[in-house]
Amino acid sequence: MTKAARNAPPASLAAQKRFHAHPFDDDKLKEECGIFGMTGVTDAANFVALGLHALQHRGQEAGGIVCHHPEFGFNSARRFGYVRDNFTSQDVMQTLPGPLAIGHVRYSTAGKKAAVIRDVQPFFGEFSRGGAAIAHNGNITNADALRRELIERGSIFQSSSDSECIIHLMARSLQKDIPSRMEDALRRVEGAFSVIAMTRTKLIGVRDPLGVRPLVLGRVGDAYCLSSETCALDIIGAELVREVAPGEMVIITEDGRVESRMPFRPQPSKFCIFEHVYFSRPDSIIGGRSVYETRRQIGVELAREAPVDADLVCPVPDSGTPAAIGFSQESGIPYAMGIIRNQYMGRTFIEPTEQIRNMGVRLKLNVNRALIKGKRVILVDDSVVRGTTSRKIKEMILDAGAAEVHFRIASPPTAWPCFYGVDTPEREKLLAATMSEDEMRDHLQVDSLKFISLDGLYRAAGEAAGRDNSCPQYCDACFSGEYPVAPSDQIEKGFQLKAAE
Amino acid sequence: MTKAARNAPPASLAAQKRFHAHPFDDDKLKEECGIFGMTGVTDAANFVALGLHALQHRGQEAGGIVCHHPEFGFNSARRFGYVRDNFTSQDVMQTLPGPLAIGHVRYSTAGKKAAVIRDVQPFFGEFSRGGAAIAHNGNITNADALRRELIERGSIFQSSSDSECIIHLMARSLQKDIPSRMEDALRRVEGAFSVIAMTRTKLIGVRDPLGVRPLVLGRVGDAYCLSSETCALDIIGAELVREVAPGEMVIITEDGRVESRMPFRPQPSKFCIFEHVYFSRPDSIIGGRSVYETRRQIGVELAREAPVDADLVCPVPDSGTPAAIGFSQESGIPYAMGIIRNQYMGRTFIEPTEQIRNMGVRLKLNVNRALIKGKRVILVDDSVVRGTTSRKIKEMILDAGAAEVHFRIASPPTAWPCFYGVDTPEREKLLAATMSEDEMRDHLQVDSLKFISLDGLYRAAGEAAGRDNSCPQYCDACFSGEYPVAPSDQIEKGFQLKAAE
Amino acid sequence: MTKAARNAPPASLAAQKRFHAHPFDDDKLKEECGIFGMTGVTDAANFVALGLHALQHRGQEAGGIVCHHPEFGFNSARRFGYVRDNFTSQDVMQTLPGPLAIGHVRYSTAGKKAAVIRDVQPFFGEFSRGGAAIAHNGNITNADALRRELIERGSIFQSSSDSECIIHLMARSLQKDIPSRMEDALRRVEGAFSVIAMTRTKLIGVRDPLGVRPLVLGRVGDAYCLSSETCALDIIGAELVREVAPGEMVIITEDGRVESRMPFRPQPSKFCIFEHVYFSRPDSIIGGRSVYETRRQIGVELAREAPVDADLVCPVPDSGTPAAIGFSQESGIPYAMGIIRNQYMGRTFIEPTEQIRNMGVRLKLNVNRALIKGKRVILVDDSVVRGTTSRKIKEMILDAGAAEVHFRIASPPTAWPCFYGVDTPEREKLLAATMSEDEMRDHLQVDSLKFISLDGLYRAAGEAAGRDNSCPQYCDACFSGEYPVAPSDQIEKGFQLKAAE
Amino acid sequence: MTKAARNAPPASLAAQKRFHAHPFDDDKLKEECGIFGMTGVTDAANFVALGLHALQHRGQEAGGIVCHHPEFGFNSARRFGYVRDNFTSQDVMQTLPGPLAIGHVRYSTAGKKAAVIRDVQPFFGEFSRGGAAIAHNGNITNADALRRELIERGSIFQSSSDSECIIHLMARSLQKDIPSRMEDALRRVEGAFSVIAMTRTKLIGVRDPLGVRPLVLGRVGDAYCLSSETCALDIIGAELVREVAPGEMVIITEDGRVESRMPFRPQPSKFCIFEHVYFSRPDSIIGGRSVYETRRQIGVELAREAPVDADLVCPVPDSGTPAAIGFSQESGIPYAMGIIRNQYMGRTFIEPTEQIRNMGVRLKLNVNRALIKGKRVILVDDSVVRGTTSRKIKEMILDAGAAEVHFRIASPPTAWPCFYGVDTPEREKLLAATMSEDEMRDHLQVDSLKFISLDGLYRAAGEAAGRDNSCPQYCDACFSGEYPVAPSDQIEKGFQLKAAE
Repeated sequence: MTKAARNAPPASLAAQKRFHAHPFDDDKLKEECGIFGMTGVTDAANFVALGLHALQHRGQEAGGIVCHHPEFGFNSARRFGYVRDNFTSQDVMQTLPGPLAIGHVRYSTAGKKAAVIRDVQPFFGEFSRGGAAIAHNGNITNADALRRELIERGSIFQSSSDSECIIHLMARSLQKDIPSRMEDALRRVEGAFSVIAMTRTKLIGVRDPLGVRPLVLGRVGDAYCLSSETCALDIIGAELVREVAPGEMVIITEDGRVESRMPFRPQPSKFCIFEHVYFSRPDSIIGGRSVYETRRQIGVELAREAPVDADLVCPVPDSGTPAAIGFSQESGIPYAMGIIRNQYMGRTFIEPTEQIRNMGVRLKLNVNRALIKGKRVILVDDSVVRGTTSRKIKEMILDAGAAEVHFRIASPPTAWPCFYGVDTPEREKLLAATMSEDEMRDHLQVDSLKFISLDGLYRAAGEAAGRDNSCPQYCDACFSGEYPVAPSDQIEKGFQLKAAE
Repeated sequence: MTKAARNAPPASLAAQKRFHAHPFDDDKLKEECGIFGMTGVTDAANFVALGLHALQHRGQEAGGIVCHHPEFGFNSARRFGYVRDNFTSQDVMQTLPGPLAIGHVRYSTAGKKAAVIRDVQPFFGEFSRGGAAIAHNGNITNADALRRELIERGSIFQSSSDSECIIHLMARSLQKDIPSRMEDALRRVEGAFSVIAMTRTKLIGVRDPLGVRPLVLGRVGDAYCLSSETCALDIIGAELVREVAPGEMVIITEDGRVESRMPFRPQPSKFCIFEHVYFSRPDSIIGGRSVYETRRQIGVELAREAPVDADLVCPVPDSGTPAAIGFSQESGIPYAMGIIRNQYMGRTFIEPTEQIRNMGVRLKLNVNRALIKGKRVILVDDSVVRGTTSRKIKEMILDAGAAEVHFRIASPPTAWPCFYGVDTPEREKLLAATMSEDEMRDHLQVDSLKFISLDGLYRAAGEAAGRDNSCPQYCDACFSGEYPVAPSDQIEKGFQLKAAE
Repeated sequence: MTKAARNAPPASLAAQKRFHAHPFDDDKLKEECGIFGMTGVTDAANFVALGLHALQHRGQEAGGIVCHHPEFGFNSARRFGYVRDNFTSQDVMQTLPGPLAIGHVRYSTAGKKAAVIRDVQPFFGEFSRGGAAIAHNGNITNADALRRELIERGSIFQSSSDSECIIHLMARSLQKDIPSRMEDALRRVEGAFSVIAMTRTKLIGVRDPLGVRPLVLGRVGDAYCLSSETCALDIIGAELVREVAPGEMVIITEDGRVESRMPFRPQPSKFCIFEHVYFSRPDSIIGGRSVYETRRQIGVELAREAPVDADLVCPVPDSGTPAAIGFSQESGIPYAMGIIRNQYMGRTFIEPTEQIRNMGVRLKLNVNRALIKGKRVILVDDSVVRGTTSRKIKEMILDAGAAEVHFRIASPPTAWPCFYGVDTPEREKLLAATMSEDEMRDHLQVDSLKFISLDGLYRAAGEAAGRDNSCPQYCDACFSGEYPVAPSDQIEKGFQLKAAE
Repeated sequence: MTKAARNAPPASLAAQKRFHAHPFDDDKLKEECGIFGMTGVTDAANFVALGLHALQHRGQEAGGIVCHHPEFGFNSARRFGYVRDNFTSQDVMQTLPGPLAIGHVRYSTAGKKAAVIRDVQPFFGEFSRGGAAIAHNGNITNADALRRELIERGSIFQSSSDSECIIHLMARSLQKDIPSRMEDALRRVEGAFSVIAMTRTKLIGVRDPLGVRPLVLGRVGDAYCLSSETCALDIIGAELVREVAPGEMVIITEDGRVESRMPFRPQPSKFCIFEHVYFSRPDSIIGGRSVYETRRQIGVELAREAPVDADLVCPVPDSGTPAAIGFSQESGIPYAMGIIRNQYMGRTFIEPTEQIRNMGVRLKLNVNRALIKGKRVILVDDSVVRGTTSRKIKEMILDAGAAEVHFRIASPPTAWPCFYGVDTPEREKLLAATMSEDEMRDHLQVDSLKFISLDGLYRAAGEAAGRDNSCPQYCDACFSGEYPVAPSDQIEKGFQLKAAE
């Protein structure tokens, strides 16, 4: 071993190598988490495993389950990788007994410190009157300040995760019962959060006062569950009871009673509109509305706002598909699968020595060459982040002999980072932060490029009158730069809010 | 350990547990193999890994690569599981050096003996003038007889695979050079086969005289490759040179010369028509024709042959998608994603104690409930094998509140087993072997059920005049019962051919 | 999966299964830990891995290393199993860069809760002015009380280990620098401890005021190390500087200065005499005295105190060997390897259905039958704990045809549990707690059984005048029941101290 | 990945890395195999696992078990690594059911081709009237010629192992029953071999006509076993029935009948004398004689032949121990453990950057410094092969302050390679092939160096009159250069036999 090799950075950790970001997916915004909890069955962890599997699109890096059994106490398992690979063997699942369990899947926050298993939620704390575990979806905008204060007072953090602040705040609360400790803790927290927690006997769900991140309550027989999305209710055959309301805490007891508390000052709701555009699964229902239908309607709106004469409407798979269907239906231009996705895509391959252009993309996507040749093609994608993928796809399509390439994007230009639980590049790397729509078109060298308008997006999401600019119905900070909660840690680090107009 | 546990059958092998068939996929016909070979690059195995990854849909149970390096000789790696998981690490790939390599992915032949790594191809044999490796796609219909004869004469088989006969026949050939040994061996073999082989210096491809299974020749720069399908050429940026002809042997030398031999008696070609319907990837090109376009055209034909008044045309994902698009375009009924597939589907989960109906299917598929409710739905699927999945899907759709369910199937009734390299249930388990179309409809309890006609399928595949019943242009034995090569091992075991009409 | 299986206790964790106690070793006292630290080299973790390997006899269940690099910060690895299996690959070791590292090996404390990786030391804490890691050998006798208090005040424990109290007490100290925080913390701790700690720049070693557990300071070139025993200095070629004194804290800075502090009230030293008898490796030097020579001298003393006429002196391998050599030399009776140890012994095997008597012992030990037959045999063992192994060995020897079996034990009767870092059975399971020497002889059905006297042991350990009963030179509580520090947690749980005489 | 790295030789196979030879052990001769078979119990594989564990000293690289069950047929498992790690889990063992099983452990033949699992015995072949498996200990001296012939005739070898010739010869035999096929095959084989084989119902053992390698027959209850050594009978509680005679084939049937055949022309027996010196375990019995006692007697003979005035007699652990005891007893010089062996030694560690002299040896051995200082030390070792380790040990002892170092070697100078199943360096690397005893002493820079004489060795092994030079009672070719079977493959490659005197 050479000295150079020995001094290699710890970034070469095996765990990291195996779960590095996929070259293609790097150009998408990433939801950081999915959460699920279950109570009232004999083997709650099996239900949680299924629920997390249905929420895998919200986070693929790692997953964890904590459960409680009256005899065997709290047990947990945390693993890197997919739920299907980690929580399906009898060896693992029989170490997770009991009627009450919660779980978490998370996305790798690339570029940060090395992934370590201690960062994988749920977090667990033993308090003076019993333990509790929490799973958190969202982001705490004053986490740095809270962490500094807690360490100063003698708390020892197990992880590099901001979410751990919540459990330390709970440990220091002078309240006796755990729900009240949670109230104390969450009142000190700023930002966006949906939290599922458990004590030895209770399952607890909370949403922040703005309701930025989703959380729903389901029931199967006499048993209850909490989930980020309704698609995870379907997989276990549960019915949707209702969404947990913004600012609400629900407490479900062993005997199936559901208590509701409202620990926060009421505020106008600001649900994340990007859940409609991209994060949620198309078979989930948000606010009584099919996510698939909203996306199809975005395509309809796009076809009205930005029509173009062409031969084929092709989705960029898989997320552009519903909008492409809507665009085709509204425009009358035939829908076609011009780009095929390799369903076995996983990790990256070792590239052959002789460089092959666009290999990164072709591993995941391939053009249907015979179909595309000589055609004027409309490509419908969900968003443009850095623009790197859009350019490669354009080249693939032109290589295959397309006559024209027109991009239609199912979201407005993404010009601002999200600080509420979504992984976005720094602002200067967002294509739309520095270029106008025309500049982006020229940069991507396509025949045309159009984004849906903010009003069009709101209409597709069911707001017939479009966006209420005085008090927007959703959080759309990534498009508008209007942040409903001040990102205080970021401001301290120098982030510049949008200048008032 | 109790005595009972100790006497457990070896069926509990860990390898088996991890790769058991998926409950949903069980009701599909399975291609048993994909093959790929490369010569003329510095690191052929990396190209083969990429090629096999693009062919993963042809076999997911296991994969193997054999390569040759002038200094390090022959090396190989064989693994259970996906290419992406086994042939992407530097640790493995640097043990596979050299300019010449071939590879194989295979499907698990469920119900047979335990999967063992010795059964994973390519097979390798050391002959008196040097070694050779072969990878085989297809099935040898006189394998039992050949195997008996070879064992009687003192050959020792390493595997339970019929394909191993070829390498033993080659070992016993009195020819000196390996291509001539292969000719000797393959002339004794009956059935359907595409074979890729390699010596220390040559890459060899052969198709059986009927050309049942596909094989194409590609070129990237000065280097050549052989592949089951063109989609694997795309992933490495190779261009399609041509298909290897039925009955042809191509021999590619180190310095890039391509020699062609015709070792068999010429026969009319009988390409497998099911490659068009289901096996091949939609972005592959067969006979100059886009597979996707043929499938879309099947939907068009189906809409003409079996129209029905309805609100939505929904594919059973993913294989029914192109035909559903064609059906929608021809019928004018809107296309919609009524069923959503979980892209993270993998192994089976431990089911919660309280039985949940249809869990098997819901792990992979979920209904878009808000979309389906109250609608008359046309479901387009590629085939009906046992009918088990069709029934579950129908129930899911009805549970979601559909008003009517109409099945349209993109292939004729599958009434006969394949003996040419496709895994089919025994004849009595094929729904169409024992029921008429109407009986199947009643059995599945759907509002209507229609299969495309054989003639319609041939038209969609480009035969404008339909099927030439005196000498069909394709092998369609699974639909027609007309086997172009007598399945002699099966007949010996009691299989009844279709009575002459 | 049956309901019964699903409700199996989490005790079936794979990690536990693989590292369960060996059937034979179960009847030994176990040292719970070995610790090692290094500073002043470019790759301290490699030195620590070697040091821990040399200390593996002090703990085989798990090991951990924490290191610090100026650029890459703190990194750590914790694993179940042997050092040789976990800390030898480049993959792991290159994730542990930097000039400063500490490590820990631990013994499995059987019967307690399931082994989890969070319990594996060193523990790490981020404090308000920088992080620190600690590795602890010993046992805190007031840990329960401290833990209760810390949890009440809001500390969250990561592990079930008592040693974690130290790092929480450090976190809550109002001192600024870490050595002073450690002083604060350790002044609140009762019991026996040797601790190695590290900050970003300093390596720190502390022994409790009684000096119960060992700790030595070594030097190799300009670099310094701390170790439980001198045998770990030898493996890295370091020389012994001196023992860390009871009650001393040594602080070694980056530039190689060694500072000494005495934070505790001075007390008479009480080094654990069992380190001489069994725990330490025979090639270690304690108090300037060879451990091997002390053990050989015990054999000499035994031969004088309890002579017997016999044909052979055989050690119970391997720990009885030095005393058997001494017994042979003093008595003139030939030394022989009557019992052979299988050097490949590891985990337990599945026993064949037909029960074979003594299989547990024979897996590890086998009698040299041809040698033993017809002979009067003296067996020299280091100690008798429960007596289960002694009985099996006696039976093996008699089965082989020995004429007489005489046990000579190189320690006094073990009649009291240790609360200072050694794993002992509950008092009622100690054979010597309930039986006299004669009763034990009858219980074991041997021809004679003699233990060395306490005075004889002290003489062998270099105290020519034997034990100073008014103020014993060593901690010998396991033999005498005289505990130098009150085991307060145990007393609270009902443990009865020896009645005053 | 750089081009250089990509072109790395396949020598970097993971399997190889993990099982490379230990730096210290490299200077020992290695037995290549241990074999064990069992019939007549319900779970033979569990007995075989225990037997192989007891024979682990004969081969540590890999092990395999083949078994047969009337219902489940033949099953097998082959693994790299120790028996204790591979054949102890229920997962593996329950895949090996049935009343009949055989197994094999093998030593890594370093320097040859990469270790692959196909080389791990037992080998299995399906013949025309049923399958058989064989496990071979020894070496076939005409294997190259046989292999060439078999390949020429169309046999395909699965492995690089010479032993595979036997099973191919069996496959080609025209005999019907398997024992007769074995007779046919083994009559064509030259060299040294003990073979254990099994059919579906019979357990078979054979020794070559000279009886070079050991093989014993044991019984436990009504069940029979075959084993390389008696120590493996002890572990399962079996009694020794007798040794299989040179040139004998024993066939044990299901119902416990033992048939004996003598298929070869009778020859004077030539048992390997090195089994007494080093290979066999000291608790095994060979020819009615304790191996331990023979080794102790070698020490007695050495003390008589080569006395020296000194303070201590120290064994080089562990193999030198019995001879050192004998030397001490005969000379009256005290025996002492001057060198301590680390019982946890396993794989190699990454060496710290700053080179430490002799690290390789110190990982395994450490000097008892306090004991050695100022003493005149006699070191007793079993053999000198290349002399590399002897030199390192001498340096360790002098570093520790010894006044004089005298080597006494328990075997004559090893001057010739073994071709009968022992891994020896090429002749020119054997120290004794090129140097006289005095030259070796000077080369090693020790105060004296003496080897036991051939006659002394024969006397210690029970031949009171010493070696019968006209017809030696043992194979001692490694010392004498007198090969009882011509090593024909080697001669063909240029090996020079000793010139006739």
